[in-house]
Amino acid sequence: MLSNELQHTIDFKTKPLGALGYLEHLAHKIGMVQKTTSPQLIAPHMVVFAADHGIATAGVSAYPQEVTYQMVMNFLGGGAAINVFCRQNGIAIKIVDAGVNFDFPEDLALIDKKVRKSSRNILEEPAMTPEEYLKALENGRQVVKEIAETGCNIIGFGEMGIGNTSASSLMMSQLFGLPVASCIGRGTGLNDDQLHNKVNILSTAIEKYPDIATPDEVARIFGGLEIAQMMGAMEEAFDQNMLIMVDGFIASVAVAAVWKKNSEVLNNCIFCHVSDENAHLQLIDLLGQKALLNLNLRLGEGTGCALAYPLIRSAVGFLNEMSSFEDAHVSNKE
Amino acid sequence: MLSNELQHTIDFKTKPLGALGYLEHLAHKIGMVQKTTSPQLIAPHMVVFAADHGIATAGVSAYPQEVTYQMVMNFLGGGAAINVFCRQNGIAIKIVDAGVNFDFPEDLALIDKKVRKSSRNILEEPAMTPEEYLKALENGRQVVKEIAETGCNIIGFGEMGIGNTSASSLMMSQLFGLPVASCIGRGTGLNDDQLHNKVNILSTAIEKYPDIATPDEVARIFGGLEIAQMMGAMEEAFDQNMLIMVDGFIASVAVAAVWKKNSEVLNNCIFCHVSDENAHLQLIDLLGQKALLNLNLRLGEGTGCALAYPLIRSAVGFLNEMSSFEDAHVSNKE
Repeated sequence: MLSNELQHTIDFKTKPLGALGYLEHLAHKIGMVQKTTSPQLIAPHMVVFAADHGIATAGVSAYPQEVTYQMVMNFLGGGAAINVFCRQNGIAIKIVDAGVNFDFPEDLALIDKKVRKSSRNILEEPAMTPEEYLKALENGRQVVKEIAETGCNIIGFGEMGIGNTSASSLMMSQLFGLPVASCIGRGTGLNDDQLHNKVNILSTAIEKYPDIATPDEVARIFGGLEIAQMMGAMEEAFDQNMLIMVDGFIASVAVAAVWKKNSEVLNNCIFCHVSDENAHLQLIDLLGQKALLNLNLRLGEGTGCALAYPLIRSAVGFLNEMSSFEDAHVSNKE
Repeated sequence: MLSNELQHTIDFKTKPLGALGYLEHLAHKIGMVQKTTSPQLIAPHMVVFAADHGIATAGVSAYPQEVTYQMVMNFLGGGAAINVFCRQNGIAIKIVDAGVNFDFPEDLALIDKKVRKSSRNILEEPAMTPEEYLKALENGRQVVKEIAETGCNIIGFGEMGIGNTSASSLMMSQLFGLPVASCIGRGTGLNDDQLHNKVNILSTAIEKYPDIATPDEVARIFGGLEIAQMMGAMEEAFDQNMLIMVDGFIASVAVAAVWKKNSEVLNNCIFCHVSDENAHLQLIDLLGQKALLNLNLRLGEGTGCALAYPLIRSAVGFLNEMSSFEDAHVSNKE
């Protein structure tokens, strides 16, 4: 049995039983995904999906909508946090226009998967039509299919989209049958009045769409184009048996929606950090998971994944490179 | 004011205010130590001090004393966890014999700073004579002085010594006036009976030495040769204005003893992880600090430092490499 073999290999490394804590759990998990006691991490990638949200004009965010395209330009220029952390840790980065409300010049290193300029305003209509939603899922899958050709077996997903914590709060509320107020955070920096306003706006949105039956309908009605593409990308990554690095609140909501369709996806997921966003810890608990980092991050972009990647390398590293008690002639516990 | 300049630089990076959480605190701290808004990490080093403990024969550890020298051989062979993590993250590693109860061959890449073979058994006499203690402090300083010649400005300290969680528990109890039972953990893996026995043995040791007045006397009587060398090494690292990466329970107790002599040492310390050892979180709280990682590690060797080092690089990286709102033409909060 591979599971026992992995545990035996881990237990007989030159360290007290369990002394590498969560890294031991991670090493076991990675071995199980790759079906070997000698797993390897190959061509790590980070994909950042960007899109705008119709609801952003309703005052749910501390930043104006134009920040979405401005940050895409910043990603392409290499000056954002995710660029710094990916460069440091040897992670290739791809930026995808999933639905930014801006006409980008054509000569950019931007992957054009734009379904439409911004999702629709859910205070008036569903965020996506059924056709737009399916197109978004498929576009996300396509991005991962192309990356898979590099041999990549570990991938993380980030997002940029002013208003997307609102979309994610709505999705979490509907996926788990929770009051929307318990799924709302301050996003990238709302004050008390703004937070109160956000709760009111999102409660109105929830009341508008009763009786939503499936996770796909939740994502279509309340989600966003970057969230839907991320879901498709995660589904493809799972089908390709990649390890999936999960970033913050928004990425975790995307995983939750995929998990409602196929619970096995969690076998491949590594939750990289628990954020400062109120609802994120609750969501990770609901999924029965534990995160590698807890640094009060709340940036998104995939930064939690890029920061946690060296720990994932360390888990694989100790499994492959540490001596056993026998190899090193070290006495085991009496 | 440098502090304000640093905070301004951090606040105007292209991210919401405070969105990089603890990494922002760390970037500020490192800038203050190096007195610049553009800090650099140069020639990172890890020093592992190894020594034996007279008290190890009293049944306070789950492993036999010979494991200390066997693990030193494992470090020198490159097969221990600390070797794997240092290789991965580009950290140079030095192994110091501070007082191992073994005659090593002379042709090893081992730094010989042996004061004596094993500290004395504190159930019978103080762990070190005054001369031995001063020699240990000085030896630790010497190790860091030599490393400083490489230009190193960030250094971590690890330890290996069967019985050294007992010495550390005793020191913590005496440094903070706490009952020894609240400073004791399971070390590298004691069961309930063994833990009960450990509490009894250490309580006996405490009663033997009433009225200890200074942190140096606490370290001399209850500590160990690797702990004393680590204290000297930390003092020298502070004098050289290096950043000091602090590992687990034992290293944190060494810092606490140094801090009782000079409270400024904490300005240079980065607490890398909080371990699974019961008393460690309490100790970090007593020092008013927060740790970067919480992965239930309890290995020692400096592994927490080596694992956390990429996060320290990320803190410096975002400070130096991220665009500001102005540079990247991104709109700030409305």
